[in-house]
Amino acid sequence: MTNINVQRIEDDLFELSKFGYNEHDKGVYRQGFTKADMDARKWLITLFRKNGLNTHMDAAGNVIGRYGDMDRPTVMVGSHLDSVPAGGIFDGTLGVIAALECVRTIRENKIDLDYPIEVVATSEEEGRFGGMLGSQALTGNVTLEWLETAIDPSGVMLKDALSENGLNYHDVLHVYRGKENIKAFLELHVEQGPVLENKMKSIGIVDGISGVFKWLVRLIGKADHAGTAPMDMRSDAFLGVADFAHEIQRIIDEEGTDRSRITIGHLELKPGFPHTVPGEVEFSIVGRDLDLEIMNNLANACRRVLSSIARKHRLMFEYEQMSWLEPKYCSKKIIELIEKNTKKRDYSYINMPSGAGHDAQFFTDITDTGLIFVPSVNGVSHAPDEWTHWVDVERGANLLLDCILDLSVDNDKISGD
Amino acid sequence: MTNINVQRIEDDLFELSKFGYNEHDKGVYRQGFTKADMDARKWLITLFRKNGLNTHMDAAGNVIGRYGDMDRPTVMVGSHLDSVPAGGIFDGTLGVIAALECVRTIRENKIDLDYPIEVVATSEEEGRFGGMLGSQALTGNVTLEWLETAIDPSGVMLKDALSENGLNYHDVLHVYRGKENIKAFLELHVEQGPVLENKMKSIGIVDGISGVFKWLVRLIGKADHAGTAPMDMRSDAFLGVADFAHEIQRIIDEEGTDRSRITIGHLELKPGFPHTVPGEVEFSIVGRDLDLEIMNNLANACRRVLSSIARKHRLMFEYEQMSWLEPKYCSKKIIELIEKNTKKRDYSYINMPSGAGHDAQFFTDITDTGLIFVPSVNGVSHAPDEWTHWVDVERGANLLLDCILDLSVDNDKISGD
Repeated sequence: MTNINVQRIEDDLFELSKFGYNEHDKGVYRQGFTKADMDARKWLITLFRKNGLNTHMDAAGNVIGRYGDMDRPTVMVGSHLDSVPAGGIFDGTLGVIAALECVRTIRENKIDLDYPIEVVATSEEEGRFGGMLGSQALTGNVTLEWLETAIDPSGVMLKDALSENGLNYHDVLHVYRGKENIKAFLELHVEQGPVLENKMKSIGIVDGISGVFKWLVRLIGKADHAGTAPMDMRSDAFLGVADFAHEIQRIIDEEGTDRSRITIGHLELKPGFPHTVPGEVEFSIVGRDLDLEIMNNLANACRRVLSSIARKHRLMFEYEQMSWLEPKYCSKKIIELIEKNTKKRDYSYINMPSGAGHDAQFFTDITDTGLIFVPSVNGVSHAPDEWTHWVDVERGANLLLDCILDLSVDNDKISGD
Repeated sequence: MTNINVQRIEDDLFELSKFGYNEHDKGVYRQGFTKADMDARKWLITLFRKNGLNTHMDAAGNVIGRYGDMDRPTVMVGSHLDSVPAGGIFDGTLGVIAALECVRTIRENKIDLDYPIEVVATSEEEGRFGGMLGSQALTGNVTLEWLETAIDPSGVMLKDALSENGLNYHDVLHVYRGKENIKAFLELHVEQGPVLENKMKSIGIVDGISGVFKWLVRLIGKADHAGTAPMDMRSDAFLGVADFAHEIQRIIDEEGTDRSRITIGHLELKPGFPHTVPGEVEFSIVGRDLDLEIMNNLANACRRVLSSIARKHRLMFEYEQMSWLEPKYCSKKIIELIEKNTKKRDYSYINMPSGAGHDAQFFTDITDTGLIFVPSVNGVSHAPDEWTHWVDVERGANLLLDCILDLSVDNDKISGD
């Protein structure tokens, strides 16, 4: 069996981590289209070329290195290069560098390909401008209107950030090359959650990316003096949301699965004074599941439970659906391919959904897509102490190599290998 | 039976409401030691003198009008003149103007007194500087240190606010005249809660002012990605406080009475993002009861329940006791006096605690003290739509008159009346 060299991945990841590294909090600050991000892309272009890849940066800022000159559909492999503020050194970058290492290995071993491989380092996956620009552009998922209006929290327009880096936002719409030119998409990524570590598995084979709904809910009662208003004469908005939170597990037990998530992450009491019964509460509900029908059932149950709690506590209930994103599914064919190779390598694994969004989700619409997770220590990500053990990185990259070879070398040749 | 004239109370209250009135929100802005407050005090001094009261403003800003020249302990009657921002026209002022009306009635009816009456309009009861300056000074409840350090939320020092109005903070310590000089203290006040209205009673006879404890509680778990962290691997701090809120009624049912209150009015989730499991929550608990032992039991139960919930949700639990004020009791003698006169007038009444603080609470320490409530429409107070029906104002003032007469005229004379 052909194997990758994990030492080279480690070296490249540490080299890459210097772009945007902050001495003070030890975090990486490489948000999309910042100087650190663009410097990293230039460094990557050099690295790709040094390894024999035919490399360019497209109009969306994606760095693409092509290996194999034949005019056939390409096996695209990669992830993103940008980071959140104070991020870690694995999120996104692992998928790029591991893909590069796979091509290095293929090249060293002089393996003949029937389909070209493209290693892609997508741009702006972490959503500085509210989307995943690079993978959306590559999959034909951007509109001119969005390109003209997208803006970051500090008020910088996407089109200006592109222009400052010599990119024209009109050209972003030329990045998509059509479904027929992409044979498959593969992404290796850190899990960013605790499941693999808790279950002591090396590999997570992702079924799909969970759908997600986000609500902004308001329960409105009556603000009262916390001393003069007896308990049974109050309309305490906080007791309403507390009762709802108490029902979340029951809602999931009845309507969901162990892949369902319902979270209250934002909450504001009004007026918010210790000596005043809160007359109003505003809070978010974020619900997730991999199955569209279950998502619908969870949302319906939340609405039902909130209505009934509001009546009980004499509250007015209103909510606004801020977003509703449907689940995205990885290709059965690729999932089976990953499973076959995981078993061949004798790695422990589970099938699992991805609760977080990834570049891969946009590729599910246009091509056979696969997403492989490796464990995150303590489930930590988007933080300086994000870590994945090198032994797991090695397994993930070897598995990625096997899958790339299966996809880029014709079956009859492989079976005769 | 001698009766007050409610029309004069109405006229005076409307006249008084002009000091600090805001056209825009129809609220009264007469916070302690503002120009509106001091102008109102000057107006009151003139009004007291016009009605034959020997009037002065003391070093704490209290306006005191004395009726009756004899050198005997005084029956002090009154309440406060200042308001919260955007307050109503009854809170505090009713007790001052009703006391004045009682003296007006006594004077018109040429009733001979055995004890002098002092009508008092206390200063700064609403706590701009974090206390109840006027009544604390009158009852010997201020320290030099507090006078030197008290400060309002906008950074104004109490001593400077006094000095700007020609008052010297050292002189505040001369305001207390000793227990032996105050025979009793009576206060008429609006309920500021919904109980009298809900129970259709005209008069609330206050047993005492509830004790109150205020805690700042922190539950600390672990912030996680709301998509990647399964429900059963989270340490969600919000679910901890929600569980606690769910137990509040049970705690009161088991440890408290219908006079107990437990309120969560302030709460902050950290980091507070919709897509992040809240790793930390900080919230206030304010507990109240009229019985010290019950207060202790409620506090112990809160601690026990929070500890057990923290264990269940894998959270760290810590709290700080910000304040612990013991209950204050009205005099049994005065309560019986009020009850007797309420029955004589055939007014409906209940005995009840005061959940809010009042000037009367400081007088309980030094003299026989009574506090009478009249209903607040919809329980509203500290707001422009604070209202009390004139028929209830009339009953409260007549009852106050009866009690003043009982206390300022020797028993043998009254029984022969």
